[in-house]
Amino acid sequence: MELTLLSPLDMHLHLRDGEMLHNIAQASAHTFSGAVIMPNLVPPVSNKEDVVAYKDRIIDAIGNENFTPYMTLFFKPDYDKTFLESVRNEITAIKLYPAGITTNSEGGVSGFDVEELRPALSAMAELDIPLCVHGETNGFVMDREAEFVSIYEKLASAFPKLKIIMEHITTKESIEALDRFDNLYATITIHHLLITLDDVAGGMLQPHLFCKPIAKRPEDREALLKVALNAHPKVMFGSDSAPHPKHAKEACGCAAGVFTAPIALQVLTELFEKNNTSFENLQAFISGNAQRIYGVTPIYKKVILEKKSFKVPAEYNGVVPMYAGEELSYSVKEIIDG
Amino acid sequence: MELTLLSPLDMHLHLRDGEMLHNIAQASAHTFSGAVIMPNLVPPVSNKEDVVAYKDRIIDAIGNENFTPYMTLFFKPDYDKTFLESVRNEITAIKLYPAGITTNSEGGVSGFDVEELRPALSAMAELDIPLCVHGETNGFVMDREAEFVSIYEKLASAFPKLKIIMEHITTKESIEALDRFDNLYATITIHHLLITLDDVAGGMLQPHLFCKPIAKRPEDREALLKVALNAHPKVMFGSDSAPHPKHAKEACGCAAGVFTAPIALQVLTELFEKNNTSFENLQAFISGNAQRIYGVTPIYKKVILEKKSFKVPAEYNGVVPMYAGEELSYSVKEIIDG
Repeated sequence: MELTLLSPLDMHLHLRDGEMLHNIAQASAHTFSGAVIMPNLVPPVSNKEDVVAYKDRIIDAIGNENFTPYMTLFFKPDYDKTFLESVRNEITAIKLYPAGITTNSEGGVSGFDVEELRPALSAMAELDIPLCVHGETNGFVMDREAEFVSIYEKLASAFPKLKIIMEHITTKESIEALDRFDNLYATITIHHLLITLDDVAGGMLQPHLFCKPIAKRPEDREALLKVALNAHPKVMFGSDSAPHPKHAKEACGCAAGVFTAPIALQVLTELFEKNNTSFENLQAFISGNAQRIYGVTPIYKKVILEKKSFKVPAEYNGVVPMYAGEELSYSVKEIIDG
Repeated sequence: MELTLLSPLDMHLHLRDGEMLHNIAQASAHTFSGAVIMPNLVPPVSNKEDVVAYKDRIIDAIGNENFTPYMTLFFKPDYDKTFLESVRNEITAIKLYPAGITTNSEGGVSGFDVEELRPALSAMAELDIPLCVHGETNGFVMDREAEFVSIYEKLASAFPKLKIIMEHITTKESIEALDRFDNLYATITIHHLLITLDDVAGGMLQPHLFCKPIAKRPEDREALLKVALNAHPKVMFGSDSAPHPKHAKEACGCAAGVFTAPIALQVLTELFEKNNTSFENLQAFISGNAQRIYGVTPIYKKVILEKKSFKVPAEYNGVVPMYAGEELSYSVKEIIDG
């Protein structure tokens, strides 16, 4: 059995920088047409020169692959319209991090005062620059995202023309918010469709499944799976694939992030098949919805998957992927692009 | 400032066996008068010969310390009255593990059918042998203990003369159950008085704080702290101190357990002081309640603590303790026993 996916898009991707960028960029660039690239480098990408230079380094790292890095800036409340106009052509979105909430987010937003944010967010709305948000408070780990929903609602009400993407949502509360505001959208990762806190800490502790936001309860996972399988028109695939070196994931005090880029399409195909879902829905979840929401036209890429066992490597250049060493039921057979 | 604790008891302790037993037994035997020793060795301690031999190995490992190991058997539904009479003098309690729920519990109980359990539990009630229970279902990790409360209630109703100890409780649901049944009691660990899931997985992943039952929500911790500080008459200190070698805790797929034996009294003293609680309550929590509930008279031991900074070692014979490398405000000054 074969299946063709057209121009897959990953609307939330960490490519890192330097050696790590070179080690992992091709894993995404090979099978995806493009990806929204997160700006949380050290220091964060927050001006035109840096975003252009980072894009050049990505292009260099992907070699001959046909792949568009959709660049983002790290949101700062002092971005003004003049600045945003000057950088508009270089970026696809701007990513907002609450301060200190995840890897390299120390310089993020620490209050959500609408008037303080108004100049920047109004200008973004006017220039049609989507705001991608890591929506977690600094509350109790299982409540952080649900607590943040009131901030999403405040921003969505105050800036009705601003496209707000609730990134890597993990709870039913976020899904319910999607339908209450026209200008709220969401990305969902692979791992949050597949695991709960049980998989991270219910048996032995599994650092390779430790991520932020942390995987939640079974009923949350069910709610996420439902909107993904139904290709809810406001939901897009975003892997949040976040590589860390093996030693950093397996050390005491391990960093958050699951590396899924090289297995994303195989796993999603298996998941949609298992749930008897139409592959039209998978196509919408993996590309169509994102094209419509972001107004992007990706590079043409035809990914042919076949039902043939694929043993996930133990590592990709020193990074341990999700399902390392396990068997998936779909393999990538052929990629036709250009 | 000095404080004297008399005959401290640890009503839930893992001493392991072999090299590990020799490495860690003195950490408990030095400051405690006695401890209830868990039977989950491989294979579990479930007959008279094994419990006598294990006690001898413990006595050997503690050297010159004055310390009573209160021995337990690993509960099996086929224990009958004749067997229990024959072993009565060698044991203080019997520990029930649901099958597969924690370290070395594979041979535990897999159903909780009252009639199937009646011969063993009735005989235990008659012989006044307390039943210590690891109360978790195999449900979602945050719900396992709360789900088990209905099993506690079923056992407490069906065997009103059986003393049932809810071990290492972590939730407000368990605390509420305490007051509904005369024959339910509980132990509480140090770590569950101090940490929540936030400390385990809210920042970086902290394998040394990963334990079963997993640390729960802030409101659960508050409820536990309240009954401990008030020295609720049905609540006793039980450390559940559970050593694993450093490499096993820091490896991918780390084992559950927090090692607190060598810091227990210092930490509890600091905690009770911080909360402006009377040291009479600490004395009741650390010894008095257990003496009354179990009907034991511990070896006389006077532990004098002083308010003087104590830097917790990075390791005790290859085992990383809670608060490794951190400063506690109380030190053990002198121990008078015999």
